[in-house]
Amino acid sequence: VSQTSHSPRLVRACLREPLDRPPVWLMRQAGRYLSEYMQIREKVPFLALCKNPELAAEVSIQPFRRFGMDGVIMFSDILIPVEAMGMTLEFTEKGPVLPEPIRSVEDINRLSIPDPIEKTGFVMEILKRLRQELSSHPDVGLIGFAGAPWTLASYMLEGGVSRNYTQIKKMMYDEPQELHRLLGMLADTVTQYLNAQIEAGAQVVQLFDSWGGIVSRQLYGEFIHPYHVRIIEGLNREKAPVILYVNGSRGLLDKMAETGADVVGVDWLTSLSDARKQTGNHVALQGNLDPNALYTKPEVLRSLVETMLAEGGSQGYICNLGHGILPTTPIENVQVMVDAVKQSGRNGINPVEELSVGAQRGIQ
Amino acid sequence: VSQTSHSPRLVRACLREPLDRPPVWLMRQAGRYLSEYMQIREKVPFLALCKNPELAAEVSIQPFRRFGMDGVIMFSDILIPVEAMGMTLEFTEKGPVLPEPIRSVEDINRLSIPDPIEKTGFVMEILKRLRQELSSHPDVGLIGFAGAPWTLASYMLEGGVSRNYTQIKKMMYDEPQELHRLLGMLADTVTQYLNAQIEAGAQVVQLFDSWGGIVSRQLYGEFIHPYHVRIIEGLNREKAPVILYVNGSRGLLDKMAETGADVVGVDWLTSLSDARKQTGNHVALQGNLDPNALYTKPEVLRSLVETMLAEGGSQGYICNLGHGILPTTPIENVQVMVDAVKQSGRNGINPVEELSVGAQRGIQ
Repeated sequence: VSQTSHSPRLVRACLREPLDRPPVWLMRQAGRYLSEYMQIREKVPFLALCKNPELAAEVSIQPFRRFGMDGVIMFSDILIPVEAMGMTLEFTEKGPVLPEPIRSVEDINRLSIPDPIEKTGFVMEILKRLRQELSSHPDVGLIGFAGAPWTLASYMLEGGVSRNYTQIKKMMYDEPQELHRLLGMLADTVTQYLNAQIEAGAQVVQLFDSWGGIVSRQLYGEFIHPYHVRIIEGLNREKAPVILYVNGSRGLLDKMAETGADVVGVDWLTSLSDARKQTGNHVALQGNLDPNALYTKPEVLRSLVETMLAEGGSQGYICNLGHGILPTTPIENVQVMVDAVKQSGRNGINPVEELSVGAQRGIQ
Repeated sequence: VSQTSHSPRLVRACLREPLDRPPVWLMRQAGRYLSEYMQIREKVPFLALCKNPELAAEVSIQPFRRFGMDGVIMFSDILIPVEAMGMTLEFTEKGPVLPEPIRSVEDINRLSIPDPIEKTGFVMEILKRLRQELSSHPDVGLIGFAGAPWTLASYMLEGGVSRNYTQIKKMMYDEPQELHRLLGMLADTVTQYLNAQIEAGAQVVQLFDSWGGIVSRQLYGEFIHPYHVRIIEGLNREKAPVILYVNGSRGLLDKMAETGADVVGVDWLTSLSDARKQTGNHVALQGNLDPNALYTKPEVLRSLVETMLAEGGSQGYICNLGHGILPTTPIENVQVMVDAVKQSGRNGINPVEELSVGAQRGIQ
């Protein structure tokens, strides 16, 4: 990746350049905990909002406007490309519903790999608008994203949010070759979709495997990891670094670091120090505050963020939550978190010194 | 523990005696997937069933009668001692509800450590009846159980099944000393409760921390692990070995093995081979078939069970699921699983040979 020191702070962190402080953004930062988001949602249903570039760009920019994060992630949903493949998609109070889930080989045969511009051009339009809006903020990075094949296949087989993932596991045991065929189609879809996002202006892309933590390491190696590798190999990495996030990744971080991703997203089950040991020195880390920590007292939160910053260091680290922000989060604590990260830069941490502290801890 | 070779197979496995085959039972084996259980539940609400020793003993024995497992676990609920501490407990379609959750220090002050005989004598009565019923099956082990403090405290603070565990985490961050006080009271309650179960005839006891996997290893070491140690140290181990089960335990098994438990319960996220490496040789293992594997074709299931048996070996291993059986499980597959384990004994696996296979794999 050929980036210069004039790239956004977020990109420089992905590429492990030394910084005076790490960048900060929050997974799901555009969303229900913000009253200005809820005002728009009162008028526009979720899926319509995803497909309205003007409004989607507006809600994407809302958290930046309020809190001044270092990254703006486009407002969208991981199931947008799944709909583009030919599946019916609805959103209810309880989340996404696919009323005609995959139940047979024929159902897989009916799917196609969509042209991302033709079928999901509205997503690219959101990114173009955001890039335009952010032109006066060159230090802020624009983030695109996609769900990873395993998570998308889970939705397609379960028909929505699942508790036990019985359908995808049944297919994994009964017809592994058919599941691999579906995962392969999804990998190609996601690769093209993310490359189109990069072309449209995304400066960083994040691949989310929200449900990658529900099987053993062995099955992860068979059904999940290879598709991360396949997607990341197919991406236009010269233009945008890649963050790989897997929820429930305790014990899997070494595999994640082997995918070729620039950044490994860490949930709150693994400390950043342990994550460094497990991923080695060739990837950056992102994470990992428990979203529930945003419900604590401001002074406790500040101390939790400071501990995290000390563990993360100022090189190859992006400060974030370990999972998406919760809808009932007290918003004043979001400001506390963002300010604590920015304050750490003003306190003038010496990045070299920080690195040697890491070395003393055995992190290097 | 002073057990003889005339002890039930389950007890001998806990104590790591060499066996011709491992014992098998299934977590939640008395329950909704059985039509004979549902027939009784049509007439008796869940909590009333827990408190009716005759009927509770009957539903406990049902799976043994149908499938011939090597262990019978008493029918009860982990929240029974929580009700005995002074909290209101109800059961709805969606599971347990505590309509007056803990919201303040005063709420904790109102709780007491219950005398297990006085307050939960019906549980001891279930065990006495089961021991009587099983007197003609000396090779079948009777299992008592309790929820661990962290999981019980979660219910008490969240008011029921939770998605995000916001309340207990808020207390953990805001008032750690108060949470420790509550966990301490629960540890004392559980210790006395399990000792009463052992006195009443339980030959093995299992400590369940269903929600032990929702925090980092560091917080696990602070709020979860010490209470396992405290309970296990207080148990009458001369009379009954202890199984410790934590759901979501990937990366925590070494800590579990340090508690003094005789058996570490393994969920399906960690292979038994990896679990052996992480726990060492001084504990037995229990697990770890994914409950979803019971939905696959019988021939696939048989092969999954055989792989698990080869990994588990015939010494220090109890064949089980990695979590509770699901209500919609096809019951014929339960028979397939139990039969596959029993067949492995008739096939005459040499336990010494099995151990050396383990050694070749680097398991020893």
